[in-house]
Amino acid sequence: MSSLTTAIEDVPEDWAGHGGRGLTSTIVATEVDPTCHPLGPNNKLVIAPGLLSGTPAANSGRLSVGAKSPLTGTIKEANAGGTAAQLLARCGCKALIIEGQPRDNGWYSISLSPSGITIEPEYALVGKGNFTTVESLEKRFDGKRGIITIGPAGEMKMAAANISVKDPDGKLRSAGRGGLGAVMGSKKVKFIAFAPQDGKVEISAPDAFKAANKAFAKALTSHPISQGLGQYGTNVLVNIINESGGLPTKNFTLGQFEGHEKISGEAMYDIIQARGGKPKHGCHPGCVIQCSQIYNDADKHYKTSGFEYESIWAMGADCCVEDLDAIAEADSLMDDLGLDSIETSVAMGVAMEAGVLQFGDGEGMCRILRDDVAQGTGLGRIIGGGAGLVGKSFGVTRVPVVKNQAIPAYDPRAIKGIGITYATSTMGADHTMGYSIATNILNVGGSVDPLSKEGQVELSRNLQIATAAIDSTGMCLFIAFAALDDEACLPALIDLINARFGLSLTGDDVVNLGKYILKTEKAFNEKAGFTREDDRLPEFFHTESLPPHNVVWDYQGEEIDSFWDF
Amino acid sequence: MSSLTTAIEDVPEDWAGHGGRGLTSTIVATEVDPTCHPLGPNNKLVIAPGLLSGTPAANSGRLSVGAKSPLTGTIKEANAGGTAAQLLARCGCKALIIEGQPRDNGWYSISLSPSGITIEPEYALVGKGNFTTVESLEKRFDGKRGIITIGPAGEMKMAAANISVKDPDGKLRSAGRGGLGAVMGSKKVKFIAFAPQDGKVEISAPDAFKAANKAFAKALTSHPISQGLGQYGTNVLVNIINESGGLPTKNFTLGQFEGHEKISGEAMYDIIQARGGKPKHGCHPGCVIQCSQIYNDADKHYKTSGFEYESIWAMGADCCVEDLDAIAEADSLMDDLGLDSIETSVAMGVAMEAGVLQFGDGEGMCRILRDDVAQGTGLGRIIGGGAGLVGKSFGVTRVPVVKNQAIPAYDPRAIKGIGITYATSTMGADHTMGYSIATNILNVGGSVDPLSKEGQVELSRNLQIATAAIDSTGMCLFIAFAALDDEACLPALIDLINARFGLSLTGDDVVNLGKYILKTEKAFNEKAGFTREDDRLPEFFHTESLPPHNVVWDYQGEEIDSFWDF
Repeated sequence: MSSLTTAIEDVPEDWAGHGGRGLTSTIVATEVDPTCHPLGPNNKLVIAPGLLSGTPAANSGRLSVGAKSPLTGTIKEANAGGTAAQLLARCGCKALIIEGQPRDNGWYSISLSPSGITIEPEYALVGKGNFTTVESLEKRFDGKRGIITIGPAGEMKMAAANISVKDPDGKLRSAGRGGLGAVMGSKKVKFIAFAPQDGKVEISAPDAFKAANKAFAKALTSHPISQGLGQYGTNVLVNIINESGGLPTKNFTLGQFEGHEKISGEAMYDIIQARGGKPKHGCHPGCVIQCSQIYNDADKHYKTSGFEYESIWAMGADCCVEDLDAIAEADSLMDDLGLDSIETSVAMGVAMEAGVLQFGDGEGMCRILRDDVAQGTGLGRIIGGGAGLVGKSFGVTRVPVVKNQAIPAYDPRAIKGIGITYATSTMGADHTMGYSIATNILNVGGSVDPLSKEGQVELSRNLQIATAAIDSTGMCLFIAFAALDDEACLPALIDLINARFGLSLTGDDVVNLGKYILKTEKAFNEKAGFTREDDRLPEFFHTESLPPHNVVWDYQGEEIDSFWDF
Repeated sequence: MSSLTTAIEDVPEDWAGHGGRGLTSTIVATEVDPTCHPLGPNNKLVIAPGLLSGTPAANSGRLSVGAKSPLTGTIKEANAGGTAAQLLARCGCKALIIEGQPRDNGWYSISLSPSGITIEPEYALVGKGNFTTVESLEKRFDGKRGIITIGPAGEMKMAAANISVKDPDGKLRSAGRGGLGAVMGSKKVKFIAFAPQDGKVEISAPDAFKAANKAFAKALTSHPISQGLGQYGTNVLVNIINESGGLPTKNFTLGQFEGHEKISGEAMYDIIQARGGKPKHGCHPGCVIQCSQIYNDADKHYKTSGFEYESIWAMGADCCVEDLDAIAEADSLMDDLGLDSIETSVAMGVAMEAGVLQFGDGEGMCRILRDDVAQGTGLGRIIGGGAGLVGKSFGVTRVPVVKNQAIPAYDPRAIKGIGITYATSTMGADHTMGYSIATNILNVGGSVDPLSKEGQVELSRNLQIATAAIDSTGMCLFIAFAALDDEACLPALIDLINARFGLSLTGDDVVNLGKYILKTEKAFNEKAGFTREDDRLPEFFHTESLPPHNVVWDYQGEEIDSFWDF
């Protein structure tokens, strides 16, 4: 972006085996100085489809985005659905690397097609929300084009800004966490468009691929969690996590929310049905789980989709808002502004604790998004800067963050395995990095008592290693439930990769890939100055006990550090 | 404060030889968990007079305040003049330790006298500025009482909040840096009062003390820098540092300020004289240098005192404001709000870079202080949170901080010795920790070329060791000029300590004390998670060259780390 030029380079041999997170983390670790300012010219934004993206493999449409994070200061990968991963792969592109910054401070767009890549000045869409941007681009270009965009939050370089990806309905999917939208904003790229492409990615052994895909899809669709996700979406978890006593409520002071029924997946399903929405919906072509949904407002007009448990928890239980419509409105505003709905909503909870607005004030939350965040006022900058920034600005001590990233929807005092993930993740608190909830709560992949310390470090380690590998394939993380329980699933996935590339990988290779990724990411963080002291939960988890189990986070540092013994 | 109780404890034997910074850092390192939240109940605020405070020794009236800093996360000591150190010492108090937090969230005051110590609820002065607070307390109590107070910034727990100490005129002196006012605010202590005390501190060898004090005062008063400070105050430096090309201008983009003459010490002297102010004035009884002054407004009414070079630089050159009256107004507002005028003004410079206000807009600066910081608006919280918080909130990459503390008035690219001090200081960027300017620019203690890397690490090391020791005596740091140049000065200071306590310390003992303090502080920081990667200047100093010398900060990490080889 500094010279407004593009170059197409062959894939270095060392990187040929990588895709998705494995590739973004490898490139960032190789090419980005870990001590650089995340919003300066020396950071790079890397966008990569997964190893299986662009193929007909079920659930293979996730796009990885990587950079040094302005929120955490660590290496970062966030991934999203939508159509971009598949189109990018079909353009023959293994990764798009955006580096430098324009000297003229103007805004630009990037267009990519099999015939090349161009950078154009952009004027019309600067300052516009994501919905308007995508709608306008559907008109400006062919409607089938893949789009990656940032909203006003990314333009303003807010640390909670996400990157949005157009989905099959022309709506949005988000690479949410870690402020990658601010990195794209710092490069002055408003959007990236991928030209439609009829070509298919080459498959080395088509018959074997087809057979493997059949077995793989069967494993996915037959798992009961997949089926639950299809009916109620991820929001099926509100009642389950509330029952477990690990639903962080009122800025992490309680483990259960009185209003949980009103914001539950079951209540949401009824509302969706009554208003002519869609309870079951895929975020990308080829998804067989369909955990997304279309949530309409009372007038039966589209309000939001990809309305996830973690966002609903954060605005609901954590902010004590019982009104699902207010939550949907805030979720839609965040999508339009281009804000991570976990980070921003946890930030709202901390702001409520500071007295900026009352707990339960869903309208107030929407007002702050419209009048402050969208306008870039001081308060808007604070909220858009994430939970840690709210804590620092208002002198709040109960700030649920690790490495400055907001802790999501599972209290680590009552569900200890996820606490190990929050503490040790190379990217700050993030449930998706090693989703212990599967085994701590859902009895997937066995059962580990959530309230006991026993077995949690090993559980989190195995899940984080597996997740890093899955995040490299372009697969949705929700294949993990079947992979943990169904013996046919993981071999079928490995068969897919082998058939795609003509390889003969084994399960060990996949595990080694996951370990390599985690160690690569950790090495970057260490060079950036992170130490084991950063692998810790905030003090209040140790000193404040969580009802109803009245438990604290009782790990010693050395116990946590043993996570890295592999 | 948790139980609203007080206790008077004997001084542990290990601590008997400590005072000032040596004592606050020892107590904080011993009693405070380095990983605690700085604004939570587990931090402690420690207030200690120096070893010689309360005696008739010249310039011995500095008060040390220590805690874990909410700005930097490191251990912190800040010291101030005023009358409190002397009165506290004459109360027989070696250190006041404030711990815990009230459970009722109410505000309190602490009163200390030789007959005991009490905690009282405080209502009337909550929300009031420092000037009103001190004036009200002069009426409420005997006018001779020593007062330590926080302003609204400290009450709001802003990370740039300072702690103010009443001076002999009933005005304010500040323990400025590191947000210690927020720690006092988090303890809900609005002010601390020391009852007047006729008693004197015991002196073991009065005649030897008297003789040593005479020699010591003579060394101080005969040094040319002391004399310059007496005439023009510290602001004598504007023209000198501008001439050197190391006067950071326009948020650290230039090394010289076109308007330097208008804000110089010489211009200030003329204004003070014309308006019936005082160019020469002491911040505490017994000062023989008298670098303070009384600056009146155009109507010849008191506006500010202790109007220091670093504050004038920050509001002047760094924010491009050429109007000394606007700077004095902002300085007075910051004193009243209880804000570190270095941190807050550098924050203004970063905010100017972000476009919040224009460079040069002194009126705008005052307006933000009145309408935003005083009211606790979002923008006010951001500015009051310091330069680092402004950078994070607005996505600015040119943010002059080390360990999140604003870099003061000397550009490290053009004056490299001070850069080593900024990088390695145990407390974030702070010129007073090892004032290399003495030898780099003023030719005190020899001469080391400011533009060359040669000898800077050793210079900073020697100065930081000496400073840590001086900060323990209760002496003003400005004794250092005489100590570096006049062979009689340091022996006289050691004689003073020996005569006070009946000891036979040598110069080596003083050096060892300084080393012990630095290592104690560093050990605290390491336990808090700081590493050598934190001993670095921001990226832009490496990549942006500073006119007029067109120099960058060109140190490798290992060169900086060799500072700690002692």
